[in-house]
Amino acid sequence: MRMFNCDYLEGAHEKILERMAETNYEQTVGYGEDGHCSAAAELIKEMVGDKDAYVQFLVGGTQTNMTILSYLLRPHEGVISADTGHIAVHESGAIEAQGHKVITLKSEDGKLSAKDIKAFVKTYWADETADHMVKPRAVYISYATETGSLYTKEELRDIRKVCKKYDMYLFLDGARLGYGLMSEKSDLTIRDIYELTDVFYIGGTKQGALFGEAVVFNSGICHKEFRYYIKQKGGMLAKGRLLGIQFETLLEKDVHGDCLYFRLARHADELAMKLKKGISELGFELYSDSYTNQQFFILPDKLIKKLSRKYSFSTWAPMGDGRTAVRICTSWATKEEAVDALIEDMAKAASKLGIK
Amino acid sequence: MRMFNCDYLEGAHEKILERMAETNYEQTVGYGEDGHCSAAAELIKEMVGDKDAYVQFLVGGTQTNMTILSYLLRPHEGVISADTGHIAVHESGAIEAQGHKVITLKSEDGKLSAKDIKAFVKTYWADETADHMVKPRAVYISYATETGSLYTKEELRDIRKVCKKYDMYLFLDGARLGYGLMSEKSDLTIRDIYELTDVFYIGGTKQGALFGEAVVFNSGICHKEFRYYIKQKGGMLAKGRLLGIQFETLLEKDVHGDCLYFRLARHADELAMKLKKGISELGFELYSDSYTNQQFFILPDKLIKKLSRKYSFSTWAPMGDGRTAVRICTSWATKEEAVDALIEDMAKAASKLGIK
Amino acid sequence: MRMFNCDYLEGAHEKILERMAETNYEQTVGYGEDGHCSAAAELIKEMVGDKDAYVQFLVGGTQTNMTILSYLLRPHEGVISADTGHIAVHESGAIEAQGHKVITLKSEDGKLSAKDIKAFVKTYWADETADHMVKPRAVYISYATETGSLYTKEELRDIRKVCKKYDMYLFLDGARLGYGLMSEKSDLTIRDIYELTDVFYIGGTKQGALFGEAVVFNSGICHKEFRYYIKQKGGMLAKGRLLGIQFETLLEKDVHGDCLYFRLARHADELAMKLKKGISELGFELYSDSYTNQQFFILPDKLIKKLSRKYSFSTWAPMGDGRTAVRICTSWATKEEAVDALIEDMAKAASKLGIK
Amino acid sequence: MRMFNCDYLEGAHEKILERMAETNYEQTVGYGEDGHCSAAAELIKEMVGDKDAYVQFLVGGTQTNMTILSYLLRPHEGVISADTGHIAVHESGAIEAQGHKVITLKSEDGKLSAKDIKAFVKTYWADETADHMVKPRAVYISYATETGSLYTKEELRDIRKVCKKYDMYLFLDGARLGYGLMSEKSDLTIRDIYELTDVFYIGGTKQGALFGEAVVFNSGICHKEFRYYIKQKGGMLAKGRLLGIQFETLLEKDVHGDCLYFRLARHADELAMKLKKGISELGFELYSDSYTNQQFFILPDKLIKKLSRKYSFSTWAPMGDGRTAVRICTSWATKEEAVDALIEDMAKAASKLGIK
Repeated sequence: MRMFNCDYLEGAHEKILERMAETNYEQTVGYGEDGHCSAAAELIKEMVGDKDAYVQFLVGGTQTNMTILSYLLRPHEGVISADTGHIAVHESGAIEAQGHKVITLKSEDGKLSAKDIKAFVKTYWADETADHMVKPRAVYISYATETGSLYTKEELRDIRKVCKKYDMYLFLDGARLGYGLMSEKSDLTIRDIYELTDVFYIGGTKQGALFGEAVVFNSGICHKEFRYYIKQKGGMLAKGRLLGIQFETLLEKDVHGDCLYFRLARHADELAMKLKKGISELGFELYSDSYTNQQFFILPDKLIKKLSRKYSFSTWAPMGDGRTAVRICTSWATKEEAVDALIEDMAKAASKLGIK
Repeated sequence: MRMFNCDYLEGAHEKILERMAETNYEQTVGYGEDGHCSAAAELIKEMVGDKDAYVQFLVGGTQTNMTILSYLLRPHEGVISADTGHIAVHESGAIEAQGHKVITLKSEDGKLSAKDIKAFVKTYWADETADHMVKPRAVYISYATETGSLYTKEELRDIRKVCKKYDMYLFLDGARLGYGLMSEKSDLTIRDIYELTDVFYIGGTKQGALFGEAVVFNSGICHKEFRYYIKQKGGMLAKGRLLGIQFETLLEKDVHGDCLYFRLARHADELAMKLKKGISELGFELYSDSYTNQQFFILPDKLIKKLSRKYSFSTWAPMGDGRTAVRICTSWATKEEAVDALIEDMAKAASKLGIK
Repeated sequence: MRMFNCDYLEGAHEKILERMAETNYEQTVGYGEDGHCSAAAELIKEMVGDKDAYVQFLVGGTQTNMTILSYLLRPHEGVISADTGHIAVHESGAIEAQGHKVITLKSEDGKLSAKDIKAFVKTYWADETADHMVKPRAVYISYATETGSLYTKEELRDIRKVCKKYDMYLFLDGARLGYGLMSEKSDLTIRDIYELTDVFYIGGTKQGALFGEAVVFNSGICHKEFRYYIKQKGGMLAKGRLLGIQFETLLEKDVHGDCLYFRLARHADELAMKLKKGISELGFELYSDSYTNQQFFILPDKLIKKLSRKYSFSTWAPMGDGRTAVRICTSWATKEEAVDALIEDMAKAASKLGIK
Repeated sequence: MRMFNCDYLEGAHEKILERMAETNYEQTVGYGEDGHCSAAAELIKEMVGDKDAYVQFLVGGTQTNMTILSYLLRPHEGVISADTGHIAVHESGAIEAQGHKVITLKSEDGKLSAKDIKAFVKTYWADETADHMVKPRAVYISYATETGSLYTKEELRDIRKVCKKYDMYLFLDGARLGYGLMSEKSDLTIRDIYELTDVFYIGGTKQGALFGEAVVFNSGICHKEFRYYIKQKGGMLAKGRLLGIQFETLLEKDVHGDCLYFRLARHADELAMKLKKGISELGFELYSDSYTNQQFFILPDKLIKKLSRKYSFSTWAPMGDGRTAVRICTSWATKEEAVDALIEDMAKAASKLGIK
């Protein structure tokens, strides 16, 4: 069985395992205050071009989202999200459990638009009884989004402008940041991301680490006492060094000025584009036009069934016409042979089933 | 200035004030455990036809909604509501502050349909990763709704059926219960409401009392330790008798088997229908076809402006074409002369402005 | 049966009922934005000597405590309270339900001391792992306390100094503020209370009103968006005028510069002192040496039992030696005859039972 | 520098790292539903002797405590803990952030006694206004405790009895379970722990794993929908297999029926006893009489200072007389040479400083 369900099917890049083994008997203080964490934080500050950026390491995505939003918002404040946003759908109500409303705006492609955000907040503030409604105080976006789409620099700037105007934080979920930045369609750098948001994170879990998300606060934003929140929400890893070591390994520059994190992301994106091309050429429709490692196709149910003996994908949405939208992911760990084999097997199966 | 903005502009029916004065020097225990509260509870049990119904009295609507939902739901559970529902819009995030997601379904007329609820929960339970999403455990409806509409008995039965099938509580917000039940279009009795829901409340604040909402749990539903929640959420009135006295006055039967609560509601509904007829005859469009005490009209902005020296309404929604939807409410306290005068003044103003 | 259990056994001073009847048919906007609320707020600002004080009206004590503390504290912050404090004991966990720890310090007489507070916070801040512990950010005191005791001006000043030094808010629960200030032992004025705290409230429920607590923020303290919290916590009364009317009635100055609120409190305190003297002269021990309207005596169980046919008190603490500490309260509504009769009946009963 | 501060200074036992490397390219589903997690769960069920026990894996201790207590308690319920309990002191208010009061009972040695628990709950339930106070619904104990002490089987049985009688869950924090069970003073087995509690966990973080805590619900206790809580609280590791792999490695039986987990714990305990003996023989007083891997000594400040160039300990409590209580921990990773060297260096330093 070859799985393409998601981008966290394997362990970690072997360099990470090696580094963990090498450092295993070092004695370090706990809770992210060790030398590996500071070294990794330094690497990040350099990448974003601001030595005053504030960096902390957490374990997973839901945890990171809820910790940051709990920190940014007061009890009467909520966060605006696309209705497809991870915090709006797939976190079992973690944000509401912190007491905050996720205010959802309809989205066609997983992205929020500056225009829609502005329309919403303008109406809100024009209402005489605004204090009977949740105050919008933050905007949550993801890059790449849950459906693989990407904001352009201009779109991000426009959202940023609306946020500034209406005194809202802009928070970017970077669980798939590398896959986004390394996409052939991306016109953003990590420095742009840093400069255009108030806080974002560099996702490790889905991009070569065992686990771990590196939170980066813009130096213009208060981060005082953020560590209390990490501890209170259960996200402060006792052996915090494990996060430091992983991000050191992923982010340290090689001779070309490149780093493992981006190399792995590029690899996955390239294979995703090969997959997209290959499956499209078989005549199957895209469910979402993604240029990142998550690809979405609408496939006939009988084809899915036939392939399911050998391959597994994520079911995304039944189309109600004998077809289903599926997500097929590549990752840092995907091999080119696997992609080739999938396309070939899909072609054969389609042909056998007499599908176009 | 004559106000028609809402149904809580005046104090209380004078019988209530009299009764408060009469009983003022009685000494009673606090927190709703006095004789007036038990007497009022008895009246309610009789009305709903079940001596095992469980009754408690709270002060206001938002408080009641959040207390009941906090009681019904566990942390990972949420409540389904129309996107126009009071809990979804106008409670400053009180439900989320209890930790729960309000799951909104699109509604055209303020009502939820059994069909939409079913479609949603069916999809939810079919999802393999259901435990990554908030579990729908209760359905919130209001009667009359926030836009004055009413569920038929059949619609309520259908919703009830879906709730039972998918193990969800059905909770009915009765802030305007009387206005709903006394509407000429209502085919429900309070006994039906009791039998077809798990918990509902009889709104006092908007229907003749100074304040107060009487919560009624169906005898089939656990109410154990509900009083802790009332206390913890700040809703346990020290001089609880004030709630008992008011509901006694409103609900005790007169010689015709009628009660003040329903008489006052009928009065408001009748005046609302007169208003609806009168304003419609002037040629103005309805924004929502309501048969209860809240009426919604689309009026030209210049007409609203002209009338605003003498009358005030609630702005509901700007139409973007020089007209605005306004809410005009009658209540237990509205005088027929006031309604007549409003229609007449509107006719005059429209004519002066040369509006049709 | 004559009850002395607590100070909220009756309705309200009749002036309040009259004023409610007089204003009953006025039409006012809701939610505390009416003229009566502003007038009452003006009276309070004048009393505290600062036209920039910020005033809001809530319904009850638990609600007020949880709303204020939710406003003052961020998620990782807690409030210091005497272990006898109302928020620590008798609010069903309302503060914890807002997410905050109540940090209790041992107290002998219901009061916190500046010394104990300082010792606690000093140790806290000296700890290397302070961010693994709840940060003390507010101090909660009550005046009069739950056991009837009173802070002196010097004690209050000392606490204030510690709060300033360690960046903590000082919040004073004034559910029994009048009874405290009018005590023969009080050396504080309401202006002192205002100046020495960050926020406090003037309790109405226990001092002549039907219900209601007037929250006063010192002008030096941010109160922005506090109304969202009132709404979200369920404390925003639709007919807010009822609070305004009551506090207008209680606080407006008479020809002597006095007001009903203080007159009623003085009345209760005087009767309490009569009771204290009378019962002490019968030879019964004080459980707590109170100079306010709550009196605490240690009485033989058989005496309590004998009196219980005619009188009721609050059981406070069993002494384990055939005696029980009871609370006997006077209030604005207590009649001198009732106090005289109680002392006389107690004397007779004691004599009959052969108790000294 | 040789650190003895705590038991999470190093990475993990090398077997764990090896196993991670071996399984690195396996593709598995996420969120703890993979084969390694089931295999580890099976090992645990066998150890506790009940195939119906329910097992889940979380990442860290605070997270585990807050997730379990959020699951067990309803909003008005609280948990009883020793005032030294981890949840009462060192979790930045994580339990309160879930809305629950931690009800602390005074403890001299880190343990709760059945007698004190009973006295508290008996008084609680005898109170007429119990519903104005947080309802005690769970008892939290740790084994070994935060100060290294151990419950005897009899003590645990007695606590269990009180819990049953007053309908309270008994929850045991096993962050240091192995160090407790392997102590020469322990008369408990893991099967006893399972049978005498409702839920407990097997701590990995401090006992040879990189991280991870294995939660075990007794089969008699409802665990339905517990996974929602893990997800909502941010504790559901995407690559859940990492937890499965670690616990498999730690818990699988060797030829002697022993397992790595217990071997490592025994090792640490033995070195701790050597340390205790050695330092005691130097004439220094114990702060707490521990038979587990945490040892507590009262040392002269100048001795601590002298040793601090070469060794580090945790400061526990200043004694106020020129001495300080320190915690000195051994762990699975401690080498006997390090212990010997510490004792020897301490002896030399003491002698040089002229301390007895």
